[in-house]
Amino acid sequence: MHLPEKVTINEVILRDGIQLEDKILSVEEKQELVNALCEANLTNLEFGSFVHPKAVPQMANSGELYELLKHDEALNLIALIPNLKGAETAAKHGVKRVNFVFSASNTHNLQNVRQTTEQSLERLKVIQKFCESNDMKLEVSIATSFGCPFEGEVPFERVKGIVKQVTELNVNMITFADTTGMANPKQVYEFVKTMKGNFPKQSFNLHFHNTRGMGLSNILAGIEAGITSFDASLGGLGGCPFAPGATGNVCTEDIVHMLHNMEMDTGINFEKLIAASSRLREMMGHELSSYVLKAGASNRKYSVSTEV
Amino acid sequence: MHLPEKVTINEVILRDGIQLEDKILSVEEKQELVNALCEANLTNLEFGSFVHPKAVPQMANSGELYELLKHDEALNLIALIPNLKGAETAAKHGVKRVNFVFSASNTHNLQNVRQTTEQSLERLKVIQKFCESNDMKLEVSIATSFGCPFEGEVPFERVKGIVKQVTELNVNMITFADTTGMANPKQVYEFVKTMKGNFPKQSFNLHFHNTRGMGLSNILAGIEAGITSFDASLGGLGGCPFAPGATGNVCTEDIVHMLHNMEMDTGINFEKLIAASSRLREMMGHELSSYVLKAGASNRKYSVSTEV
Repeated sequence: MHLPEKVTINEVILRDGIQLEDKILSVEEKQELVNALCEANLTNLEFGSFVHPKAVPQMANSGELYELLKHDEALNLIALIPNLKGAETAAKHGVKRVNFVFSASNTHNLQNVRQTTEQSLERLKVIQKFCESNDMKLEVSIATSFGCPFEGEVPFERVKGIVKQVTELNVNMITFADTTGMANPKQVYEFVKTMKGNFPKQSFNLHFHNTRGMGLSNILAGIEAGITSFDASLGGLGGCPFAPGATGNVCTEDIVHMLHNMEMDTGINFEKLIAASSRLREMMGHELSSYVLKAGASNRKYSVSTEV
Repeated sequence: MHLPEKVTINEVILRDGIQLEDKILSVEEKQELVNALCEANLTNLEFGSFVHPKAVPQMANSGELYELLKHDEALNLIALIPNLKGAETAAKHGVKRVNFVFSASNTHNLQNVRQTTEQSLERLKVIQKFCESNDMKLEVSIATSFGCPFEGEVPFERVKGIVKQVTELNVNMITFADTTGMANPKQVYEFVKTMKGNFPKQSFNLHFHNTRGMGLSNILAGIEAGITSFDASLGGLGGCPFAPGATGNVCTEDIVHMLHNMEMDTGINFEKLIAASSRLREMMGHELSSYVLKAGASNRKYSVSTEV
């Protein structure tokens, strides 16, 4: 088992994490969470998205939040954008890094952004030019890379074809997203090995949902295949629009706990991360799907009962 | 990633799964669950334990249950025993396979069975002779093999020394149990590799708890290190005596789902396993920690919304 020394975690709580929640966080609450995450030495944060506020009201204050946060140089801030309008709004607020998302599955992309995958790839070219001329870094997320809730299997060759077109635009990072938690570790391992083999110069990041409980196993498989960058959401928040009650994104503190136990460094302070998750639980007003928030770390020791 | 074609699941719902539950299942309810599991082609079941009924009232009807089940030749039935008395009671009921459990951690063993590990190893020799002369197959479970909630780390050399003594008694199978969910995949991989290297003729089984969410990842690491036999509990029932609200055993249907998706065979019918878990949820009267019971299998397809 060959493991890297260091793994990078990209926190998505303020984007994917909260976007299905009933409670809409104020900009002050979001800022408090960011401060708690910075206390825990988190360095990469997807802080929101520039989508239509009617479509995702939870994201409406993303620009305002950025204005409050942008002076912290230790924190890499990134915003999700679904189109050029999103990129333009991001630019207006001075955002320096954006993540353009579209789906490998045509049906999912039509559902999500009312465009075919091919149309989104055309859109990407325009956005890439906009970012270049506005000195913004562009990343790309390919949703449903490991399967589509409408179409089922997404042919591997199809994703490879998309990646080929994206790499030609010199984007900073490509994220493969398992949007509804369909990936399994064997698939992830083989997928990553082939992608790294075919596109050796491209940086890749993985985004998993824990819908079927395979999130940590998929991260492990990704690591074994050579990936060292993963998205995660504090408290495992995120949900699934198709399965009520199902778990959301892979949980940041559960991942960090596992990686640290496996002697990989994330740079993150685990205890302070738990404090941030605990504060999140208070804010949201419901239990989170985090394991280590409930059970504590593996090295937690208990007193011997006096009954013996 | 080298994967085996076939993996064996040993169901522990009727022993470890229910032993911390408030609701005590009647022998009829237990039989109904066993029938549902047999419908799903389950072949290995730890059906109960012969411990003092005052200590674990959930197990009091284990002998009666065995009398009802013993005629099904397709089902390997095994009972947990903590001592010779347990073996004797098992023998009285005609039980043919018993699993003697003790802890690698001295402190945990003292808490659990009021004996040192050394004393339990002496006890094992007596039990082994009893089983031999009563034509019963003996297995051994070593609890806290990957860590102790009181002592913390359990030195690897200590577990190796215990295994050496156990292998000299020619037991059928040795289970390494991660009793309170402290193991991580790196540890499991290295542990298994060394154990298999040192005791190449001995069969090993792994028993994980999902307390810190690493259950499936630990199974994956165990498989990668060459293990093909795992304990699991329907619905992930089991809990943790130290962490209220924490998750219990690794969940049978989540494991079977992952293994099947990774093209490994378990011989189990997934849909019927879900039906058994659904019935268990009704019986227990509360939600289970199973992921796939809530979310459905990865190949579940959804209809496209007409709003687009």
